[in-house]
Amino acid sequence: MRLAVLGAGAVGSSVAELAAAYGHTVTALGDSSSAVVDADGVDVDAALERKREEGQVGAAEPDAAVDGPYDALVEATPTTLDDAQPGFGHVRAALERDRHAVLANKGPVAERYDEVRALEAESAGQVRFEATVGGAIPVLGTVEDYGPGKISAARGILNGTANFILTRMAAEGLGYEHVLAEAQDMGVAEADPTFDVEGIDAALKCVILANVLARGERTYTRADAEIDGITDVPGSALELANEDGRTIRLIGEVTGETVRVGPRLLPEHADLAVGGTTNIVQLETENAGRLNLSGRGAGGPETASAVLADVNRLPEP
Amino acid sequence: MRLAVLGAGAVGSSVAELAAAYGHTVTALGDSSSAVVDADGVDVDAALERKREEGQVGAAEPDAAVDGPYDALVEATPTTLDDAQPGFGHVRAALERDRHAVLANKGPVAERYDEVRALEAESAGQVRFEATVGGAIPVLGTVEDYGPGKISAARGILNGTANFILTRMAAEGLGYEHVLAEAQDMGVAEADPTFDVEGIDAALKCVILANVLARGERTYTRADAEIDGITDVPGSALELANEDGRTIRLIGEVTGETVRVGPRLLPEHADLAVGGTTNIVQLETENAGRLNLSGRGAGGPETASAVLADVNRLPEP
Repeated sequence: MRLAVLGAGAVGSSVAELAAAYGHTVTALGDSSSAVVDADGVDVDAALERKREEGQVGAAEPDAAVDGPYDALVEATPTTLDDAQPGFGHVRAALERDRHAVLANKGPVAERYDEVRALEAESAGQVRFEATVGGAIPVLGTVEDYGPGKISAARGILNGTANFILTRMAAEGLGYEHVLAEAQDMGVAEADPTFDVEGIDAALKCVILANVLARGERTYTRADAEIDGITDVPGSALELANEDGRTIRLIGEVTGETVRVGPRLLPEHADLAVGGTTNIVQLETENAGRLNLSGRGAGGPETASAVLADVNRLPEP
Repeated sequence: MRLAVLGAGAVGSSVAELAAAYGHTVTALGDSSSAVVDADGVDVDAALERKREEGQVGAAEPDAAVDGPYDALVEATPTTLDDAQPGFGHVRAALERDRHAVLANKGPVAERYDEVRALEAESAGQVRFEATVGGAIPVLGTVEDYGPGKISAARGILNGTANFILTRMAAEGLGYEHVLAEAQDMGVAEADPTFDVEGIDAALKCVILANVLARGERTYTRADAEIDGITDVPGSALELANEDGRTIRLIGEVTGETVRVGPRLLPEHADLAVGGTTNIVQLETENAGRLNLSGRGAGGPETASAVLADVNRLPEP
């Protein structure tokens, strides 16, 4: 399939680099300030080298990638809130041209889900977004296979940075600020960790999952979620939990009409209490009991694998 | 979709009972000695009640179900080895009529995989068999999505009976024979537990997984697997492991060209060391690290959910 990849960060560049090994051709690649388009296949290595050296993937205007030749547009620009731009506009442009849209960007499907689905309904293209929930973990594909109406609840650990911090605090008896600084040094936390430690990133994933499980009966946005982060979890709380064979994790929950993210007390060896940057999702199914799906929730090639799994499910043009 | 369900045991009857809730119609239902066929939809409740009371689902000959009107044949008769009959014959009949075949029966895809794939290649129908590996756990769907060529190894606990016995032996300090008798009383182990405790059932699942991962480059049968069961695991070995923070589980492994099943020593709280009748599969992916998928590996509605997930992936006729 011919892919236009929007975004040349960790995920977008991994999609572009891996596409050929999955049988696809990158016919357009765009970043925030430039693009490169070639109907016969972009020279991905050259474009990414140019990005590293000159800050731009190509000489064309950014819109050239959206307007270029492709069967599926991969939206891998950074997640933005509220109007979810420019990601939303990219998805709209693809669908209006009857092309598929595959998202790694959470914004459009967390903040403007009903609009995305309305555009899809008018299009010959489809929208998929496995990579937006749990990175490499096959969450949305499993929901689709088992039937969103057959899943009564979902909960999980959907932010590796927050989970790494809580795991380290519990294991080493260290305070939040100390472990955060360490995580930033290691590249596990960003310089501005707000999205991760305030629970916003996990909440967006839960909102997306809630939208899928609701099957159009209602739609959710971030405003529908109760969100607590981990910045107020004292080391002493983890010590007390530990003495009792328990631990604290930042858990996202989608049950009925409720979407919540917050610190929760769990048995230390509970299935849900994965460690480090690992993510996990538990699905409560109507007929098949509980499914536990865990793996890497972030990372370039990991998230790109989920994008390419989505591409694999799309009908050929 | 119109389904012919072959087999009226726990899995077949669950598929028949759940089909309508997933948007499908059962147009034929067969057991080993009879069948009922109705192009407008079989009265499933009446047929299963007749089965309970009279031992037969209907008044027609068994072949009537295979020859009846349907889009997909669900093969849920008991797993048999070697020639894998009558399951293989049912799958062949469906494919020769250009119908889809969905298997819960491991025999045809463990013992005669190349023949099944050859029949599929000549047919407009497709073959799917998610339910044969790990029951409700979405193993084969995940392999398909991520690309069988992108998965370097798989390992897991693929037999709930053996895992229940080992878990109980470790937790209670009891011997094998005692726990086996208890499991038989509870219905967790069959009167003849050979398939489960000798590792054969787990090996068939590993062989199927190996066939999928090999993508036709070679095929495997049970004869290619090294198989050790749990009948010789002494309680004292579990005690020694326990003193060292470890435990013993029956692990199936598919790595490169090797298929093995046998008791293995694991850290007590390893991801792989699930307890009770739970099953787990770990996939080592090329680009996305390790995925852990766990859930119920057996049971009527659980396995039927996997069958219906397969049906959901089939193209409409």
